[in-house]
Amino acid sequence: MWTVVTVSELGSVTKLLDKQAIYEVVLRYCRGVDRLDIELVRSAYHPGAVDHHVGFEGNIDEYAAWLERVLAKLDGTMHLVGNHYVEFVDDDRAISETYVIATHWGTPSDDGLINFTGGGRYVDVMERRNGVWAIAERWAVQEWSRSDAGTVTMPRVPGARGSRDNTDPLHQVLARARRTK
Amino acid sequence: MWTVVTVSELGSVTKLLDKQAIYEVVLRYCRGVDRLDIELVRSAYHPGAVDHHVGFEGNIDEYAAWLERVLAKLDGTMHLVGNHYVEFVDDDRAISETYVIATHWGTPSDDGLINFTGGGRYVDVMERRNGVWAIAERWAVQEWSRSDAGTVTMPRVPGARGSRDNTDPLHQVLARARRTK
Amino acid sequence: MWTVVTVSELGSVTKLLDKQAIYEVVLRYCRGVDRLDIELVRSAYHPGAVDHHVGFEGNIDEYAAWLERVLAKLDGTMHLVGNHYVEFVDDDRAISETYVIATHWGTPSDDGLINFTGGGRYVDVMERRNGVWAIAERWAVQEWSRSDAGTVTMPRVPGARGSRDNTDPLHQVLARARRTK
Repeated sequence: MWTVVTVSELGSVTKLLDKQAIYEVVLRYCRGVDRLDIELVRSAYHPGAVDHHVGFEGNIDEYAAWLERVLAKLDGTMHLVGNHYVEFVDDDRAISETYVIATHWGTPSDDGLINFTGGGRYVDVMERRNGVWAIAERWAVQEWSRSDAGTVTMPRVPGARGSRDNTDPLHQVLARARRTK
Repeated sequence: MWTVVTVSELGSVTKLLDKQAIYEVVLRYCRGVDRLDIELVRSAYHPGAVDHHVGFEGNIDEYAAWLERVLAKLDGTMHLVGNHYVEFVDDDRAISETYVIATHWGTPSDDGLINFTGGGRYVDVMERRNGVWAIAERWAVQEWSRSDAGTVTMPRVPGARGSRDNTDPLHQVLARARRTK
Repeated sequence: MWTVVTVSELGSVTKLLDKQAIYEVVLRYCRGVDRLDIELVRSAYHPGAVDHHVGFEGNIDEYAAWLERVLAKLDGTMHLVGNHYVEFVDDDRAISETYVIATHWGTPSDDGLINFTGGGRYVDVMERRNGVWAIAERWAVQEWSRSDAGTVTMPRVPGARGSRDNTDPLHQVLARARRTK
């Protein structure tokens, strides 16, 4: 059956697809950090993109190197994001705000400098270049920080655990799915 | 190329656009509270809307006044939302449930009445009036509350900070984007 | 007005609808657990689906029975999800990763085994069978766990409270909406 789509509706759908693409850029950043996949982190940025981070200022190349050093001091991180709000400046540029709760853990577990949870927001200038949305400039805005010294523990019950290498369940499941495709 | 869109698919897409519009109503509410932008909070409600909040019952005018007084006692808040689930009652009315983790901080930092994190849900009757989705009635449902007395600190490292005025990075970036449009 | 929709755009929209359907499967799971609605939990899985959970391995029938016993020891739970990332294997199969912060509380409130917050990820093999997306296999991946012993309290201020029976505001509002439809 043929049906009528108004130009206004079509425009909205196009923007919905753009918002989803931009959301997935933010998710790839988080997955890259949490799985210690620096190349995935880089893929969330355009070449030459600028990052204003907590304790860091520089371009994506410098940021990737800095991030790798910082993450090496920790046993793991989890960057849970919500509140993804996109405002378009023009067809190929948008300001994207995303709320984040970032949990960091390390050894020893009573050290509050490596065992803490931080709340903040990613304020991103997102641009579409050659059809691909990615970060052109990012501000990691700090809101609060809470020490988890002595209270965060690794789970004691059996079951799947997150890791930063290919033994992580996500990688295992994706690899198996590709083999059985 | 012309293509065929079934009525069923088109209906689903329309609902997807509605869900996104409703999600952004919830996000504007959160941004309004966290940036201390009471007019933005109001814009998430229809005129005459009713709010059943923690420690408050009344219409949106009364709620906005109450909220402003409560927020003035705090140094900042962060309302991170997830689990946005919409059920349509008819074309222009929906029940929207959203999970929220709300972090509150204030001075002095060892006062648990102004330094706490609460978990809950927004149960909203959303209505579309004159083409605009907004809250007609809201229940802020409490689940749990955790004292953060003495554990939540402001970040000590350099970098962008959230604020409740126009110096917040979001406002700065949006203003710059509009100037360079 | 007639307009042109390219096959590529239509394909993207179809995938967007699939992602939303898969997201809502995850949300129904969370709502089912948190509202103690075991049938709703079951509806998120295909018959015979496998669950690899924290401290559990088995099929959905066994999981539902195990879950009911575990939840009975607690006064309440809240499973807030973010970072929903879907990768399609083929038209009817996808790997879905979802981040979760799960808060658990119980009596007495100083018992850290029933008062804790856990961070993790749901890694799901999602399949569409007879037009319905649901979980075929799930890994609940553990990341971190934090004791909330003695710090999580039930809210002391008046207002709507979450519950695990039909008095929960969500059920009340949904029932009222259906009556006035």
